[in-house]
Amino acid sequence: MTDSANATLYQQLADDLSLAISRGTLPPGARLPSVRRTSQSRNLSLNTVVAAYRVLEDRGLVEARPQSGYYVRARLPSPARAPTTRSGPAKPTENKVLDLIGTVLAAQQTPGFIDLALACPRGGDFYPGNKLARLMGQILRRQPGMISTYALPPGSERLRVQIARRGLELGMALEPDNIILTNGCMEALQLALRAVTRPGDAVGLESPTYFNLLPLFASLGLKAVEIPTDPQTGLAMDAVELLLSEQRITALVAMPNVHNPLGCSMPLEAKKRLARLVNQYKVPLIEDALYAELQFSDTLSPAVKAFDDDGWVIVCSSYNKTLAPDFRVGWMEGGRFGDALRKLKFASSVAQPQVLSETLGAFLESGGYDHHLRALKRRYAAHVEKVRGLIARHFPAGTRATDPAGGFLIWLELPEQVDSVALFHAAIAENISIMPGPLYSPGGRYRNAMRLSCCYPMDERYVAALTRIGMLAHQQLASA
Amino acid sequence: MTDSANATLYQQLADDLSLAISRGTLPPGARLPSVRRTSQSRNLSLNTVVAAYRVLEDRGLVEARPQSGYYVRARLPSPARAPTTRSGPAKPTENKVLDLIGTVLAAQQTPGFIDLALACPRGGDFYPGNKLARLMGQILRRQPGMISTYALPPGSERLRVQIARRGLELGMALEPDNIILTNGCMEALQLALRAVTRPGDAVGLESPTYFNLLPLFASLGLKAVEIPTDPQTGLAMDAVELLLSEQRITALVAMPNVHNPLGCSMPLEAKKRLARLVNQYKVPLIEDALYAELQFSDTLSPAVKAFDDDGWVIVCSSYNKTLAPDFRVGWMEGGRFGDALRKLKFASSVAQPQVLSETLGAFLESGGYDHHLRALKRRYAAHVEKVRGLIARHFPAGTRATDPAGGFLIWLELPEQVDSVALFHAAIAENISIMPGPLYSPGGRYRNAMRLSCCYPMDERYVAALTRIGMLAHQQLASA
Repeated sequence: MTDSANATLYQQLADDLSLAISRGTLPPGARLPSVRRTSQSRNLSLNTVVAAYRVLEDRGLVEARPQSGYYVRARLPSPARAPTTRSGPAKPTENKVLDLIGTVLAAQQTPGFIDLALACPRGGDFYPGNKLARLMGQILRRQPGMISTYALPPGSERLRVQIARRGLELGMALEPDNIILTNGCMEALQLALRAVTRPGDAVGLESPTYFNLLPLFASLGLKAVEIPTDPQTGLAMDAVELLLSEQRITALVAMPNVHNPLGCSMPLEAKKRLARLVNQYKVPLIEDALYAELQFSDTLSPAVKAFDDDGWVIVCSSYNKTLAPDFRVGWMEGGRFGDALRKLKFASSVAQPQVLSETLGAFLESGGYDHHLRALKRRYAAHVEKVRGLIARHFPAGTRATDPAGGFLIWLELPEQVDSVALFHAAIAENISIMPGPLYSPGGRYRNAMRLSCCYPMDERYVAALTRIGMLAHQQLASA
Repeated sequence: MTDSANATLYQQLADDLSLAISRGTLPPGARLPSVRRTSQSRNLSLNTVVAAYRVLEDRGLVEARPQSGYYVRARLPSPARAPTTRSGPAKPTENKVLDLIGTVLAAQQTPGFIDLALACPRGGDFYPGNKLARLMGQILRRQPGMISTYALPPGSERLRVQIARRGLELGMALEPDNIILTNGCMEALQLALRAVTRPGDAVGLESPTYFNLLPLFASLGLKAVEIPTDPQTGLAMDAVELLLSEQRITALVAMPNVHNPLGCSMPLEAKKRLARLVNQYKVPLIEDALYAELQFSDTLSPAVKAFDDDGWVIVCSSYNKTLAPDFRVGWMEGGRFGDALRKLKFASSVAQPQVLSETLGAFLESGGYDHHLRALKRRYAAHVEKVRGLIARHFPAGTRATDPAGGFLIWLELPEQVDSVALFHAAIAENISIMPGPLYSPGGRYRNAMRLSCCYPMDERYVAALTRIGMLAHQQLASA
């Protein structure tokens, strides 16, 4: 048997047992069958079974007890429910956000710096960079004038057709002509907010939410209304309905699939209700679908946009996390705001580079995307599992961690005495970055929370850095 | 003698005579020396001299009179001075702007469409697209992970160093660390305006001005204050001083070099005065330097930023018109607003694609830029001369045209009875686009003006389309 077949076998066994553990078939405290017994029952070599058990240990799912065997570890509790809505002008968290991000960005330049914070994939073997480079070369050979031709909207039809085709996977029937190309998902969100709000407006957002929305809100003079968001089910829909029915918000921004930072997706019925409500109350929903394709399940749960009967949903996304992190190819479909958004894009940054759009379009056409996405999701799922294991082992008792439905982000709640901003500064002093919880709330909530990112190579340095953060949290607790 | 040497000889002779005509050495009405005499005095073949005279004829500089010889044509008068300042809320020109631009953009897709309107270079042989493609290939081979790595600010140091180096040519001492990369010059202008104004603020701009500023102003809730702008000397500095001293504007946007649409550069003393005034009154100047490197003179007249003692000048530019139209690599240096702008860029669209920035950086490092720029400027100067000739020949008597100091844009003033918006619609019906004058003023001035763009191949189709516009103007006049 070849090495690679062996590798598949122990991986397969580890995956089977992981599934049994996550389903509760093997509950916390249960003893795994002995290596010898599993070897016989599965018809595998002893070495293969030992390798599989070590993978489970690495993932933090089981622990070896001397002279006794392997036992299923206690599962990490999920974070508690989010706090209740609190509206009104935010404390100036939004300025802190960019100062702290600035610190993290500056630290990136330091040799030996370990980033556990940002959601910025890097590393050639996660993404098909070589194939994209080849496609780009082919495109430029066939159309040598492309670089020398001004990029004009609407931009690559090839890409827009593919975006529409991929939209079907999320239940969205998008017209290529209605898709606007943007500089990443961030520009799409920025344009959407500028198109549907005026300074002084109150806009609803999830709590916690994507940190970069806070300085964006501040720059546009918007008041943030924090809406409770459950780590498992997302937006509290009763609160949303109240805010809409009382006309307390002019617009709403949400990530119904694979929320950042919580990693959760809203249940199907909640998504339908959200689409119905924003259409009923005629309040635009800006749906951030950035991580929607990174759902771990094979069949993707649909976007809210899929149920948008009357065009009140503006959906925004990009290929920065899924395919080509450097290209910054983003897009939006603006529903009834499409025309206004097209104009605002032109008057804000005109267009996007055609050579990048065409390259992505060619890749998506070629049919390799599904395969790549499956592999990427498997990899991120394994990273997430491993980091959850490390958290369980190295962080203080009482630490809760999300079990994300996709993507590569984990949200932690540490014991109440822990101050994640202090932890951030202690970590930066040791050349490690984390994202402290208060960055995710305009009101500066979540002082004892933090976000970790698992989109980086899970090497010894990563593990050592994460272990060190756990130790710093322990120290804070001890001196509290 | 080879064909290409011949080509150089007649071109050289035509250029020499063009210069003599533009300097007045050969004044309007003067007869050119006969073909035979020039052939003898220059030691050139008769055919070469005939070819050179035909070039001059094509450029509209001379006309052949039967049995008599070649005569220098009457020069086009420059447009009259611009009207006086008129402030206050604009008529809704800004919405018309994008509707008309939308019409032009949509028409681009029509086969046989001729664009005389947009300032969007296209055509492989104007720009070093092949060399850029090769450099991009080399960069990706050396750093195969680049596409797979998230683009983070501040972006390519290589490019920022080159931007700072090139800034010296315009008298600016820029620090690479202070340069912010943007999606074209347009995003730089947009971020600058968002950083230094609030909705309701009055902001000064040239009249006429770059049309895309009008919808941008409208989207930001800014009041446009039109400042008289002379077709030869640019901003009326006494008016600027008045507005600044009376605190009537919160900020000022201007193109002191190679203005769009007028093509003029401000005299050196006026630039120094402008820098002094904005620093004295502490009012940010947003300097649009997009065409500054396309000044036809070998030595570039400096940017206003060159005299910015206290950081009140935000300079914005890009390589869209000079080097790589598709890449949309823009940049800005924000003076005292640098930190705010860096943050606003992050919260608005995060960053720019590294692969494009590095490619441009490598090209600029390689030293081929000066050579390319000289050739491009020569070419655009010849285009401009040719189009001015066509205007003189085919447009109604009394038509005035700018003689731009650089770039590829010409501003026309037609007889007062001509309505350029009606002309626009008549032209579009015949698959030709022009830019009507009222798009360049928030107050909807310049009804009898238009902008023509000479950045397209000067082929028979272009000439036929331009001739046709002249004929439509004649028809309008006849039926007026």
